[in-house]
Amino acid sequence: MQNLGITEREIAGLLPPLRARGDTAASAGELAELFARATWTGIAEPGDRAAGLLVTALGAHRALAALIERWPVERLLAEVDPAERAGRGALGRELNDALERWRPRLNSAAAVRALQGAVRLGCRLAVPGDAEWPTGVDDLGVHAPLALWWRGQPEAMAAMRRSFALVGARAATGYGEHITMEASAGLVDRGFAIVSGAAYGIDGTAHRAALASNGVTVAFLAGGLDRFYPSGHDALLHSIAATGAVISELPCGASPTRWRFLQRNRLIATASQATVVLEAGHRSGSLNTAGHAAAAGRPLGAVPGPVTSPASAGCHRLLRDYDARCVTNAAEMAELLEPDAAGPELSSAASPAAAGRSRVQATPEQLRVLDALSTRSARGVGDIAVRSGMAPNSVIATLGVLELEGRAREDERGWLRRQPG
Amino acid sequence: MQNLGITEREIAGLLPPLRARGDTAASAGELAELFARATWTGIAEPGDRAAGLLVTALGAHRALAALIERWPVERLLAEVDPAERAGRGALGRELNDALERWRPRLNSAAAVRALQGAVRLGCRLAVPGDAEWPTGVDDLGVHAPLALWWRGQPEAMAAMRRSFALVGARAATGYGEHITMEASAGLVDRGFAIVSGAAYGIDGTAHRAALASNGVTVAFLAGGLDRFYPSGHDALLHSIAATGAVISELPCGASPTRWRFLQRNRLIATASQATVVLEAGHRSGSLNTAGHAAAAGRPLGAVPGPVTSPASAGCHRLLRDYDARCVTNAAEMAELLEPDAAGPELSSAASPAAAGRSRVQATPEQLRVLDALSTRSARGVGDIAVRSGMAPNSVIATLGVLELEGRAREDERGWLRRQPG
Repeated sequence: MQNLGITEREIAGLLPPLRARGDTAASAGELAELFARATWTGIAEPGDRAAGLLVTALGAHRALAALIERWPVERLLAEVDPAERAGRGALGRELNDALERWRPRLNSAAAVRALQGAVRLGCRLAVPGDAEWPTGVDDLGVHAPLALWWRGQPEAMAAMRRSFALVGARAATGYGEHITMEASAGLVDRGFAIVSGAAYGIDGTAHRAALASNGVTVAFLAGGLDRFYPSGHDALLHSIAATGAVISELPCGASPTRWRFLQRNRLIATASQATVVLEAGHRSGSLNTAGHAAAAGRPLGAVPGPVTSPASAGCHRLLRDYDARCVTNAAEMAELLEPDAAGPELSSAASPAAAGRSRVQATPEQLRVLDALSTRSARGVGDIAVRSGMAPNSVIATLGVLELEGRAREDERGWLRRQPG
Repeated sequence: MQNLGITEREIAGLLPPLRARGDTAASAGELAELFARATWTGIAEPGDRAAGLLVTALGAHRALAALIERWPVERLLAEVDPAERAGRGALGRELNDALERWRPRLNSAAAVRALQGAVRLGCRLAVPGDAEWPTGVDDLGVHAPLALWWRGQPEAMAAMRRSFALVGARAATGYGEHITMEASAGLVDRGFAIVSGAAYGIDGTAHRAALASNGVTVAFLAGGLDRFYPSGHDALLHSIAATGAVISELPCGASPTRWRFLQRNRLIATASQATVVLEAGHRSGSLNTAGHAAAAGRPLGAVPGPVTSPASAGCHRLLRDYDARCVTNAAEMAELLEPDAAGPELSSAASPAAAGRSRVQATPEQLRVLDALSTRSARGVGDIAVRSGMAPNSVIATLGVLELEGRAREDERGWLRRQPG
């Protein structure tokens, strides 16, 4: 690694404070691998497929060495995909392009500055295999993050393995904020962590409600953790870090760009187990998060709102065109992950037809006989048979059940309906 | 037919005024068949499967004769299903039960009274095969109506072949009535007839808005057409009959019962081509209509509302549990039947991810280069490559496109982003 100008000794000094458990026993090789992953977060943009391929095939340290030592593409191909070693196929071109975009960013001073800044701020570095690693992001495959920077509690990192992403528009209405508060508090009550993006509007409300319920909440940012964004949520993000976690795949010093916001959304969608869009206009960025959740096979819910409210148009679009499930409260959201949690009300309602029936709590025969009875004029079985269109024998049998249930009575003149209650 | 005590001559006097086109040329046999169908509407309750089987197999006239002449079940079976002629199977029992429930209603005076009442009121009788017959109800198979009584315009009857059922709860909110007015008027504008049940709340609003838009609207009632129900909608129903049609499968004199309301709903759901529930509580009877529409394979839409409004809970249930499509305006409702009518807005939005992209109208590369540019500080290609994480060659190519589009410019110091507008 001489070419990046950083010694093993420097690495051994910088890395351990960045690790949740100190890593004092880590070998020089392990530390070099960690250093390389940290460095890659400043070289490749989030979701860079070529970086994912190379690090998977060579390991982060050797992949970085290959970049520094300017290995020819043919040598890289031999390691990434021996079948394409001729180097003239699509993969060869892809790696060649990648080397060209990575080289301008090879900057040892910047890499060391990012690490030093992270140490100063109390940031930690998580890599795949760590207890703190949100395993859900591995579903992104070659687009998965190479490492994650985080500030906060290790338990909050692990809590993402049972979590919901609650997202929505910055331009939230009172309605949207109300349902977000209810949803976030209700999911916290059910033991879920709340993942979101710390934006104004729905995201911020989701984090705040989780904190107010003493729940665990995690925020993914699109820039380095040295500068919390948006700045108006600086205090909120510090509160989140105090009991939860604030995470980014970009190193200290990296600014949040629109591209990085879109890529950040894939982490929110996959670090959590399910995504719910609570309120979103037709072109809200939260629809991008929803798209990532659906692409990753995560359950996707959307909360409807008044069709007269443009602030809910994006949610309705998800229901219409992207097969999102309609969820109206925390219990229904929890069912996205745990269908068995369905309340008795839902499981007992077999069909809308049954709903029409259960309203009057009667079988079709009982309904027809009840319809034919009066509370004032006593009627004979023959009359009831004509009125109900039922056979006299069926009328007699049904009247027997209704009498037992206290819904009909007989006097000397005939049968009467009993007033309920 | 001597046993019902009605002569061919009486039938020839009663029937023709009940027919839309007079039927002066109808043969005695044809008139007898019509008379029998009319009579059956007073004998069998709506949706009676055994009546449907018998009338299909024997014709209405012979089926009525079989009832009057007390044919043994074995003889009926031989005609309905020769394979089961032993008469000891389920079908034999079903027919036997049916005969027992029909016999108490065999009443020639009532049948004649119903016909005379219908003539007095200007009612008409439609049977399968008539130009006025709403062919959609044939999808009910053995549960289809045997005949329909109607008041109004023959064109309105035929218009049901391109119609929407708009239904909902009696307990409607201002929100529900507003969206119903918009939906009904918008569908009328698109040339659809509006079918509903004339109840208070959503149904009445749907009819009224169609009338106000000079559209065709049709109401299905659960009782005879001699007494419009609900009585508070008497004037509305007369308005509907003046330009549209009011329909029932029950003869004059029949009262609306809860059972008949549920059966009436199957006609609303199948006489129309698609059903939309506009606002409905958790147990609204309109969910029963929705269930019939789904069972008949008709497209089913539901309009969402605030999740805080119990008045929309039934609509949300349809979206969640019954695969209803989320529809938020008349255009989306029309798409239930004519997917090609989708506006350019929907068809161009390929995915939520694309939505996030189209918001800034840029390819990923353009977005990354724009993110790396400033409107004030000019930057060189190398600097932009580092900031965007792109290869210098790609940066140059992308800058060229952005310059052509007027979104970037170059001066002697380097590249700048142009302010939009």
